[in-house]
Amino acid sequence: MDLATFDPSTSVAATATLEVVETPSLVLDADRMDRNITRLRNRLGSLGVSLRPHLKTAKSIEVARRIMSAPEGPATVSTLKEAEQFAADGLRDMVYAVGIAPAKLARVVELRAKGVDLVVVLDTVEQAQAVAEASRSAGMRIPALIEIDCDGHRSGVVPTNHAQLLEIGLALAAGAELRGVLTHAGDSYKGGGPEAQQRYAESERAAVVGAAQLLRSAGLPCPVVSVGSTPTAHYAKDLTGVTEVRAGVFVFFDLVMAGIGVCQVDDIALSVLATVIGHQREKGWIITDAGWMSLSRDRGTSKQAVDQGYGLVCDIQGQNYRDIIVADANQEHGIVAVRPGSDARLPDLRIGDRVRILPNHACATAAQHEAYHVVRGQSHAIEACWQRFGGW
Amino acid sequence: MDLATFDPSTSVAATATLEVVETPSLVLDADRMDRNITRLRNRLGSLGVSLRPHLKTAKSIEVARRIMSAPEGPATVSTLKEAEQFAADGLRDMVYAVGIAPAKLARVVELRAKGVDLVVVLDTVEQAQAVAEASRSAGMRIPALIEIDCDGHRSGVVPTNHAQLLEIGLALAAGAELRGVLTHAGDSYKGGGPEAQQRYAESERAAVVGAAQLLRSAGLPCPVVSVGSTPTAHYAKDLTGVTEVRAGVFVFFDLVMAGIGVCQVDDIALSVLATVIGHQREKGWIITDAGWMSLSRDRGTSKQAVDQGYGLVCDIQGQNYRDIIVADANQEHGIVAVRPGSDARLPDLRIGDRVRILPNHACATAAQHEAYHVVRGQSHAIEACWQRFGGW
Repeated sequence: MDLATFDPSTSVAATATLEVVETPSLVLDADRMDRNITRLRNRLGSLGVSLRPHLKTAKSIEVARRIMSAPEGPATVSTLKEAEQFAADGLRDMVYAVGIAPAKLARVVELRAKGVDLVVVLDTVEQAQAVAEASRSAGMRIPALIEIDCDGHRSGVVPTNHAQLLEIGLALAAGAELRGVLTHAGDSYKGGGPEAQQRYAESERAAVVGAAQLLRSAGLPCPVVSVGSTPTAHYAKDLTGVTEVRAGVFVFFDLVMAGIGVCQVDDIALSVLATVIGHQREKGWIITDAGWMSLSRDRGTSKQAVDQGYGLVCDIQGQNYRDIIVADANQEHGIVAVRPGSDARLPDLRIGDRVRILPNHACATAAQHEAYHVVRGQSHAIEACWQRFGGW
Repeated sequence: MDLATFDPSTSVAATATLEVVETPSLVLDADRMDRNITRLRNRLGSLGVSLRPHLKTAKSIEVARRIMSAPEGPATVSTLKEAEQFAADGLRDMVYAVGIAPAKLARVVELRAKGVDLVVVLDTVEQAQAVAEASRSAGMRIPALIEIDCDGHRSGVVPTNHAQLLEIGLALAAGAELRGVLTHAGDSYKGGGPEAQQRYAESERAAVVGAAQLLRSAGLPCPVVSVGSTPTAHYAKDLTGVTEVRAGVFVFFDLVMAGIGVCQVDDIALSVLATVIGHQREKGWIITDAGWMSLSRDRGTSKQAVDQGYGLVCDIQGQNYRDIIVADANQEHGIVAVRPGSDARLPDLRIGDRVRILPNHACATAAQHEAYHVVRGQSHAIEACWQRFGGW
């Protein structure tokens, strides 16, 4: 059985189960995914704001269809490859939420010429001038959001820098379209508990709503006011003035999100299926065929209260063993051991037995795989195989 | 221009250059690669031992052909997917150097039935019994190497555990073929200077030669005595009793290897081409479109004397700026800054300018990409685009 060559992507052998599929492979518990999607959708519904899901975590048409409110979008992407792939599947409303490089505008123009409302993001006058120039050349007004820096973690204009905001807005007006403002509370990934998250959410809201007001009071348009991160989306109490929320990892969740309290460990919908290939009994190690190539090098829990190593080990049903982690990883070897300081005992696993490993960071782990093997709840049957894509 | 869809893989637009190719993308300096290959080949030639290159770093037919002494091999692989892909290109002599899972033997049998001398690796009696049983079922003697643990870093039988070695050897004899012994000095990646490396190399040699002698003295065959890691391959003074050396990252090198002194920074043949997409001047940051998705999450230099962040930044020619690193990375954003403690100044880079980033770990960074964009020396012309593959 070679799932990788199946076409169409949803085909799966009737006999495919977690016991026989090749390892390592990426498993998606669709029950958990559905529950996670419903949770955020209900939450944002009660706050009266719409969801523009970020598809950078999923990178799969099948998953995207289940996240979005409609086949046309709205959605958020992190690469033009995502925009192109999703556009080919019918998406018509996307924000490319990484600062635009002028050389990438040709691909933006091409997608927009096909009827895709693809919006770019920028935070410099130079970029705004490039977008305005590309708009004039192409005979179309390319819409852009000005990125606002709400917490100093990465990109964006500081919302109190009125001069720069207005200069960018005016530069866009010369041919392009100022669609609005966008921010991302990257600092929320640091955690700190519900009250800290509510503060992050309020800073995120205040920064971008303030920027929007400034632009409007200068006579510039600002219809879109976009915020987004999975933690703030789950903790915001008030989103007055915000028109949309972007979030991505909420669909699958991961150990980093569990570590900061946004979800429980048993909400995590992704795992890597692995086979035991050795023991070093004197050292208390079990060796599996899931190394960093399948788990990713992400060590996002290393600075959290509970360091999960390269992942938390579960049985084949997805039930986690107490304090059993992937303590170290080489390219195609994972070293499973008891978490340092714990009195837990290694499970009695034999050569050929299978485990499932919950990831630190869903975006990074999923990126190491070409497909999701879809299961539901306690069933071992793989009911579908959904292709992923990578690249730029 | 969409290089990703080019077929055959060596096609490349005549106008493709580092200035116009999409970013982020993976650049391979073939001059440096050729020099690195020649260096190790000459070294092992003078030691009178043959090279069985590890293709897990390259995962590319084009690169593999340039590393191997002959189109049929020998070579080493880390996944059965590699074995199948390279077999389809004519390789006939491969070691799958990760402990075999019994369920994977069907694919091994299938490749061997096609005339590929694929050898498995194991370190338990259970695995040896499974290989012997699969051999009897398939009517072929599947060859296996017993993995020896020379430094306690991962898998293998401790060479002084004579009982286990002999038990495994005898279990194989019941239908399979004991081809020899194999080890990997994983600890050599910790560095420590030339003398430490010579000690690692000698421990590696002694462990595996001792195990071979034990097996032979018990009347068991042991034609292959295989060692390998890039550092020990470059520092071993004596390989008496060893029949082959496996090494992989020597082809490209990386910052981890430079950090332990196995190569110079300007031997590193791989880099990620990135575009400047923003500035945070007050913070001393330049933002590029190469985040961890293109650089990988590997932070292998974090415990070395010089922490290179997520990579060392070079100009578009591949000449590194002094002390300019990717200080932090998000999925599609890299934050370029001066190395902490350095008096260097940020280069004057504008929106749209391009840089090349040397990776911490070539295996991990290459794995994030679908193709190598091949250049030579100072030229900006991309003379070929070599496809990579991933998966298992």
